[in-house]
Amino acid sequence: MQTELTPVSLKITQDRINAYAEITGDPNPIHLDAAFAARTEMGGIIAHGTLSMNLILRAMAATFGPDACDGAEMDIRFVKPVRVDDVVTASGTRDQDESGRYTVQITNQAGEPVIVGWVRPAVAGV
Amino acid sequence: MQTELTPVSLKITQDRINAYAEITGDPNPIHLDAAFAARTEMGGIIAHGTLSMNLILRAMAATFGPDACDGAEMDIRFVKPVRVDDVVTASGTRDQDESGRYTVQITNQAGEPVIVGWVRPAVAGV
Repeated sequence: MQTELTPVSLKITQDRINAYAEITGDPNPIHLDAAFAARTEMGGIIAHGTLSMNLILRAMAATFGPDACDGAEMDIRFVKPVRVDDVVTASGTRDQDESGRYTVQITNQAGEPVIVGWVRPAVAGV
Repeated sequence: MQTELTPVSLKITQDRINAYAEITGDPNPIHLDAAFAARTEMGGIIAHGTLSMNLILRAMAATFGPDACDGAEMDIRFVKPVRVDDVVTASGTRDQDESGRYTVQITNQAGEPVIVGWVRPAVAGV
């Protein structure tokens, strides 16, 4: 039984955000238009939440294998925006009960949580 | 108060999956290598879960505006793999209680749910 998820990191560049917008069909200007984004409550460009959230799936796959995410359940909250050139890292620790859940967090380079929550991999025997 | 999230759809092509793998730094062969994927329990290539999940964020932004996702909470489950060339659609309906939650689902072109759960947008007054 794995008590820790294998941590994984990603640098969130503007190039990555631009490409992500194109691939996902998500042209929300808060991710792409610095002048627009500066006028919102966000005060500047933020990355797509699922761009960072993918690191949780990567951490599950790195820990349990490539099909660990199928059937998985997750409960997460976006607690802080991810900014251009942030380096975000996903990690997780198995809860000390019978739930099969891992408490997970994605933190930025300052150690601040940006996404928090839990996942339950749907993998036999973990 | 919006009772329905604005539905959004995306076709999940192999080109999109390949580009998504590169952008997210997620080279899991279950998304990229048909021969490998065929030998797994998945029986073939599946798309990254967060590629489809992004549609829920898009639906929130389409409904409430570009910064609707910051501070949002979501609880979702991957119930069925998304396959190459599936067309997936996210939609949602506000729960008839005081929770502020929307029950959401992403369905494929056959109407089968692939992701189900709820979201709570962190937007004042919704």
